[in-house]
Amino acid sequence: MRLRGTLAYDGTGYRGWQAQGGTGPTLQETVERAVSIVFRQPIRVAAAGRTDTGVHARGQVIAFDVVQAEAESAEPARVAPHGALGRLLRSINAVLPSDIALLDLAAAAADFDPRRAALLRCYQYRIWNARTRSPFELRTAWHVPEPLDDRDMGAAAAALVGERDFASFQGADHVPRASVRRVARSEIERAGALISYWIEANAFARHMVRNIVGQLVEIGLGRAAPQRIAELLALRDRRAAAPPAPPEGLFLEWVRYP
Amino acid sequence: MRLRGTLAYDGTGYRGWQAQGGTGPTLQETVERAVSIVFRQPIRVAAAGRTDTGVHARGQVIAFDVVQAEAESAEPARVAPHGALGRLLRSINAVLPSDIALLDLAAAAADFDPRRAALLRCYQYRIWNARTRSPFELRTAWHVPEPLDDRDMGAAAAALVGERDFASFQGADHVPRASVRRVARSEIERAGALISYWIEANAFARHMVRNIVGQLVEIGLGRAAPQRIAELLALRDRRAAAPPAPPEGLFLEWVRYP
Repeated sequence: MRLRGTLAYDGTGYRGWQAQGGTGPTLQETVERAVSIVFRQPIRVAAAGRTDTGVHARGQVIAFDVVQAEAESAEPARVAPHGALGRLLRSINAVLPSDIALLDLAAAAADFDPRRAALLRCYQYRIWNARTRSPFELRTAWHVPEPLDDRDMGAAAAALVGERDFASFQGADHVPRASVRRVARSEIERAGALISYWIEANAFARHMVRNIVGQLVEIGLGRAAPQRIAELLALRDRRAAAPPAPPEGLFLEWVRYP
Repeated sequence: MRLRGTLAYDGTGYRGWQAQGGTGPTLQETVERAVSIVFRQPIRVAAAGRTDTGVHARGQVIAFDVVQAEAESAEPARVAPHGALGRLLRSINAVLPSDIALLDLAAAAADFDPRRAALLRCYQYRIWNARTRSPFELRTAWHVPEPLDDRDMGAAAAALVGERDFASFQGADHVPRASVRRVARSEIERAGALISYWIEANAFARHMVRNIVGQLVEIGLGRAAPQRIAELLALRDRRAAAPPAPPEGLFLEWVRYP
């Protein structure tokens, strides 16, 4: 049977969801090891979003198949009843390292693909905008010490809503790809020293959110005008836009399905 | 001349403000080393609150004396002008480890004592109340997986406002001490899975906030009635109350002066 679940993780110590070079564990192999131990069988886990090195999640969606044991070996087969899923959830969390948490676990359709079935994904990017760093945001926000104009950033962000070509905000690996995405929300919020950028879209190009935030911060610093976003969309040239924001501020917040 | 400043720190890696047994650095020695390096002289630092091992601060107030060098050696003497204080602030933050931040720095009266002069102190205690841990609150909240009744906790907390004898909520070292404190605020707030307990008082007995929170959680779990707080105040017996809450949820938020 197929199961689906929601993961939260602090990505600081991981080489992203799947290996991207560098050293250290990936989230995928760490989660696969935990569920394989609990279900006593080798299990491969699929995820909705392949988060980069150092990127976090509060609502990553995963799915995996569990081979039901025959009636004779009772233990690993207790998947179906509701209480059993709660016990499995606790067992998996007991095996996972403390910087990863499985928030829920449920039965899924046999063909549920968390990446292809996703209709809408939401990312948040957090910026700590104060002269001095926050000891509590070292792993979870980008520290920008110079004052940012969040109204200019918000005006620039609004220009991304709708069906847009994000070629200027794609990964810089020179592989030609489809770069049109449908953005449902693109907003800046400020609460004290914390500036949050929220973006919801049907899908995301590689490094897209960090590339957008890098440009929004240039605008917030007054080094570019809010209209620069529209110019960059028209240019369709990654080299014209600002460098990407660092990974520690980025969170995959949730994924929506039909 | 005397300077005062405000510190924020993640206390996870420290043996409290000053040594309390155990191993590892104290906050006091770490801060003293940083300011001594920047001012090129040995400096002792006084703090408003002696936070325990693992306890955090967002608004610890410190003070220290800097011996003004003669006019001939210009470098360490540039304390007075405003721009100089900003430069010193940046220098101190560059020397401090990243889990400690000096938020501001100002000239103080020669006799300013951050502990004795304090009129009111505010602590927050954070509880992550969800079935599963949060990877982002491991160092900054107490994880209580069972559902807590925050209305009962709030009713119990309200009973602490006013001039009260906190003998039942003191440190358990059997040293008789004055235990009457004046509490100006004692409130429970909930935002999703996060329950915050806020307490403001003229002064705090040792371990007082953690002892109160330990009892409030017993009440939130339904193991004691909200009226238990009034009973414990009347009993004046530390052994009658619940064990203390762990240090990771506690934050010294701010200190007020005349």
